[in-house]
Amino acid sequence: MKEYTLLNRINSLEDFKKLSEKDYPLLADEIRSFLVETVASHGGHLASNLGAVELTIALHNVFSSPEDKIVFDVGHQSYVHKILTGRREAFSTLREKGGLGGFPKRRESEHDAFNTGHSSTSVSAALGMLRAKQLLNEQGKIIAVIGDGAMTGGMAFEALNDAGESKLPLLVIMNDNEMSISGNVGALSSYFSRLRTSKRYLMFKHRIENFLTSIPKVGPGIARWVYRFKNRIKYFLMPRNIFFEAMGFTYLGPVDGHDTQEIIEVLKKASSFKWPALIHVITQKGKGYKPATENPERFHGIGIFDADSGAEINKKAKSNSAVFGETLIELAKEDDRITAVCAAMPQGTGLAKFSREFPDRFFDVGIAEQHAVTMAAGMAAGGLKPVVAIYSTFMQRAYDQVLHDVGLQSLPVIFALDRAGLVGEDGETHQGVYDIAYMLTVPNVNIAIPSTQAELKAMIKELTKLNAPSAIRYGRGALPVGDEGKKIEFGKWEIEKAVSKVTVIASGRVLENARCACENQDVGLINARFIRPFDKEAMALINSKAECIITVEDGISSLGMGAYLRNYVKPGIKVINLGVGEKPVEHATLSEQDDLCGISAQKIRMKIEENL
Amino acid sequence: MKEYTLLNRINSLEDFKKLSEKDYPLLADEIRSFLVETVASHGGHLASNLGAVELTIALHNVFSSPEDKIVFDVGHQSYVHKILTGRREAFSTLREKGGLGGFPKRRESEHDAFNTGHSSTSVSAALGMLRAKQLLNEQGKIIAVIGDGAMTGGMAFEALNDAGESKLPLLVIMNDNEMSISGNVGALSSYFSRLRTSKRYLMFKHRIENFLTSIPKVGPGIARWVYRFKNRIKYFLMPRNIFFEAMGFTYLGPVDGHDTQEIIEVLKKASSFKWPALIHVITQKGKGYKPATENPERFHGIGIFDADSGAEINKKAKSNSAVFGETLIELAKEDDRITAVCAAMPQGTGLAKFSREFPDRFFDVGIAEQHAVTMAAGMAAGGLKPVVAIYSTFMQRAYDQVLHDVGLQSLPVIFALDRAGLVGEDGETHQGVYDIAYMLTVPNVNIAIPSTQAELKAMIKELTKLNAPSAIRYGRGALPVGDEGKKIEFGKWEIEKAVSKVTVIASGRVLENARCACENQDVGLINARFIRPFDKEAMALINSKAECIITVEDGISSLGMGAYLRNYVKPGIKVINLGVGEKPVEHATLSEQDDLCGISAQKIRMKIEENL
Repeated sequence: MKEYTLLNRINSLEDFKKLSEKDYPLLADEIRSFLVETVASHGGHLASNLGAVELTIALHNVFSSPEDKIVFDVGHQSYVHKILTGRREAFSTLREKGGLGGFPKRRESEHDAFNTGHSSTSVSAALGMLRAKQLLNEQGKIIAVIGDGAMTGGMAFEALNDAGESKLPLLVIMNDNEMSISGNVGALSSYFSRLRTSKRYLMFKHRIENFLTSIPKVGPGIARWVYRFKNRIKYFLMPRNIFFEAMGFTYLGPVDGHDTQEIIEVLKKASSFKWPALIHVITQKGKGYKPATENPERFHGIGIFDADSGAEINKKAKSNSAVFGETLIELAKEDDRITAVCAAMPQGTGLAKFSREFPDRFFDVGIAEQHAVTMAAGMAAGGLKPVVAIYSTFMQRAYDQVLHDVGLQSLPVIFALDRAGLVGEDGETHQGVYDIAYMLTVPNVNIAIPSTQAELKAMIKELTKLNAPSAIRYGRGALPVGDEGKKIEFGKWEIEKAVSKVTVIASGRVLENARCACENQDVGLINARFIRPFDKEAMALINSKAECIITVEDGISSLGMGAYLRNYVKPGIKVINLGVGEKPVEHATLSEQDDLCGISAQKIRMKIEENL
Repeated sequence: MKEYTLLNRINSLEDFKKLSEKDYPLLADEIRSFLVETVASHGGHLASNLGAVELTIALHNVFSSPEDKIVFDVGHQSYVHKILTGRREAFSTLREKGGLGGFPKRRESEHDAFNTGHSSTSVSAALGMLRAKQLLNEQGKIIAVIGDGAMTGGMAFEALNDAGESKLPLLVIMNDNEMSISGNVGALSSYFSRLRTSKRYLMFKHRIENFLTSIPKVGPGIARWVYRFKNRIKYFLMPRNIFFEAMGFTYLGPVDGHDTQEIIEVLKKASSFKWPALIHVITQKGKGYKPATENPERFHGIGIFDADSGAEINKKAKSNSAVFGETLIELAKEDDRITAVCAAMPQGTGLAKFSREFPDRFFDVGIAEQHAVTMAAGMAAGGLKPVVAIYSTFMQRAYDQVLHDVGLQSLPVIFALDRAGLVGEDGETHQGVYDIAYMLTVPNVNIAIPSTQAELKAMIKELTKLNAPSAIRYGRGALPVGDEGKKIEFGKWEIEKAVSKVTVIASGRVLENARCACENQDVGLINARFIRPFDKEAMALINSKAECIITVEDGISSLGMGAYLRNYVKPGIKVINLGVGEKPVEHATLSEQDDLCGISAQKIRMKIEENL
């Protein structure tokens, strides 16, 4: 345990406010050690928080939360904010059941102004809060802190557009670490790079200004033009700001995001504006912790690790994402129409290897799920077989595109929904429990749910043969390896144990829980591998023999697989749908969440015994 | 019937290609008359098509469909394209059952490259198609035609960002009619206005260039700066293009969108580029038809009307939208925390009057549903009571924001889902049949479905009292007026006819169909006004007496109200869910669609009789 002489005195925001500014460098050091120590033993988001230490200190120096409100986009960079606002001690419960959440939570603290988790929402929320303050005649500033990656999300653009027009004194801080989760992509990113090299523009500006004012003999016509020229010179001489100025924001920066004093000065200046302003702060992801600066993507979201070396503890079995990525490479070798699309997550989705193997057939569009899906629809309309790999929870962002652009036209796009089902410590904003329900509403989409990695492989192969859209969902971590020899028939369930009076029907990861629950019990067990097409033949068999059906899934049970299955159940049969309830499931371990939702082996067994 | 000497010779794109360019003005005139004549007798989108006549002629002059592919954003401006590509004769079946659709349809013609309906999808789809051409080594250009309004949708920005970075020769035509559906909003719109006045920048450019080159005595240092200055002068002198150039596009324009020759020249120039280009075309909505130029919003989407005067025939009863808008004004007078938010649809959603009455509390954010919802979430977090009025089908675009920003935080935002249920002639892209299903997946959202305008009023009043999110859905047109004296209890159903062995449970507009079907039958009839909270008390009563439940809704029946209700039905009771099937419902009249889906009075009665 390290000594935190300064940090240990901070039990509230007031304590922080008592510090002198010259204490900040030491405080920043202590915060960094504390972050590494805690995340090493709890897992969580490290690199982004290490990068935001000075920025957060400066924000709380200049502003007075909760009257002033800070909205953290995505929210995984809010650890320092939590530590400074009365949650230093509680920080040891980070991401534990009943403990501190890994994202801002309004119910956790009055200093958490708005719950975040998904990308690119902060400017919208902040603008709404500012409008509320205005209409209710309340004091206080609203500040949105958004990463350069989140800026590529369309809704951030929608919000900047509205905010610029509103002319309200919204303050947007662009925390630019030159990468979102993986390297940043898109034209805007190149544009940002140009901004970063702006010193030469500033020099240029001074030279040209001197040059112009030094010209003695300009006629009156030219003089007017020169005046206009100077008035508009910013468009030319500071191309760094044209994008944001076109959106109606005053641009300030770039600012060194690890120089607390510099940030404080700019924040003070900007907070006096009566109109929208954007401060461009350059930070380094993982700052101050070598393993993280060397490999920021690995330290974006990480499990427990050794704080000294950065080496991960409990190195897991091959992940589902890796199996997905490898399978896609195999298939792509045989079929050159297969392409892969992701939204800023080549590592997370297991596509990094694919991107190196087939650089021309790999498309990372940035944090832009909507575009990813419709772009893939265009590819499919053009004769390709795109596979779009996006986390289940983030695919929600593209629901309309999945339905309107892929589903209605029945285009052969494959959606690989990673991190499906319960996700454990990331909590409610990241739960992938809605996907079965929302995908079922999409016309023509086939839905596959593997319970082993062997099924995952086999299913993807089947789906690439279709001339229709499909979705395959699988959770974080590793499914059992399974039997590669076993044949998977498209749209068919597997009868693991003969249909009986009580028959359990389970899909995906929780089939294993159901299997344990069924051991030594006189019950049927079905692996419902596909939800659409629905296996009516198997259902007819079940309808003919069962008196009670218990469905098990790690999606919302009142609207997902189990609920859908009720459409096909013969009247008179009792149906019990086990799964996630309609209320959000907070952060806890996966097995705690299974238990909470009644889909642990033990809870399923209890339900079986009640009905035998 | 008018004479169409030129137009009548066009039975295919080849016929059009045979025309001489000097025939185009007459052709344009004939097309305009033909458009007015057809839409007057069929209803449809008029103003946008009148504005796109010359642009469409120019596109088909320069490009060769189907090798070259034109993607029409939204697609309501594709009538001229349909007429020129072999569908002139079929145009008399516009929006009729089995006839031509009002939007591009791949199954209708090889010249319809991609189905559209919702806004801002074209650049994404076009980029995907272009990438497919590249990878498959196919010839041909891809052109996206997008309105200035659709440019405010975030996904267009996501797509421009990716396209700019791709450096592929994508051609984007921005059809700028200075309004989307209502007047355009947002900072980008002000920016576009500045572009339109660009002549003075061009003049300025020439003068400054002359000025600079006429300076004789510049030292070598200054000379280098002057060189750089000239090199980068475009950023300053043509601020019109900075936005798109920052995104990686070469900007061309503005071009007079009613000068076919001018458009043709620019198209030819742009089509030789090997990189992304954007052509800015200025058009006038309703061009050439006085009633439409004078009131383009009324002639955006319109029912049948008198072609000479422009007067609407069959002026309908007061619309649900109008009732909604008036109710909100009443409520807003009493509670100054109520605000209204819409996405470019103040007229369509019935909020125009509210916007005049409470300009400070009305927020039209442009075609930006995602931002609208999260901005409202921010307002609610800040203590306001925002009401977000968006068509059911367009709310799909904000599914993640509804779930993640409003639902998970349980913020008191009211979603007014207009155009819910079957929508008739607009067809499958506009069907509001998914909302019950997707709203049910959202945690904490209450769902109300009025069957009369009196219920609509009473429900909105109830919903503004909640400290939780809610959605209220109602269709296009007018529900029966209903009885204003009748009390509506939050979360409670109404028992219209006592529960019987066969009991019909219906929601919303189709309750009237169910009522007709139940006449003189010994069946129960329930008005299921709220889906969440679910009326468990009423359900217990039904469970105790009914043997067969028939649910009726104009949403997808396997996943909507009826399917959800199955979760609460006692085992042994037969449940029949009537409603829309999982396959998309194409354009037809509303009553034809009701019949097709089995929710007309006659079809419901048949189902009742089968089960009595």
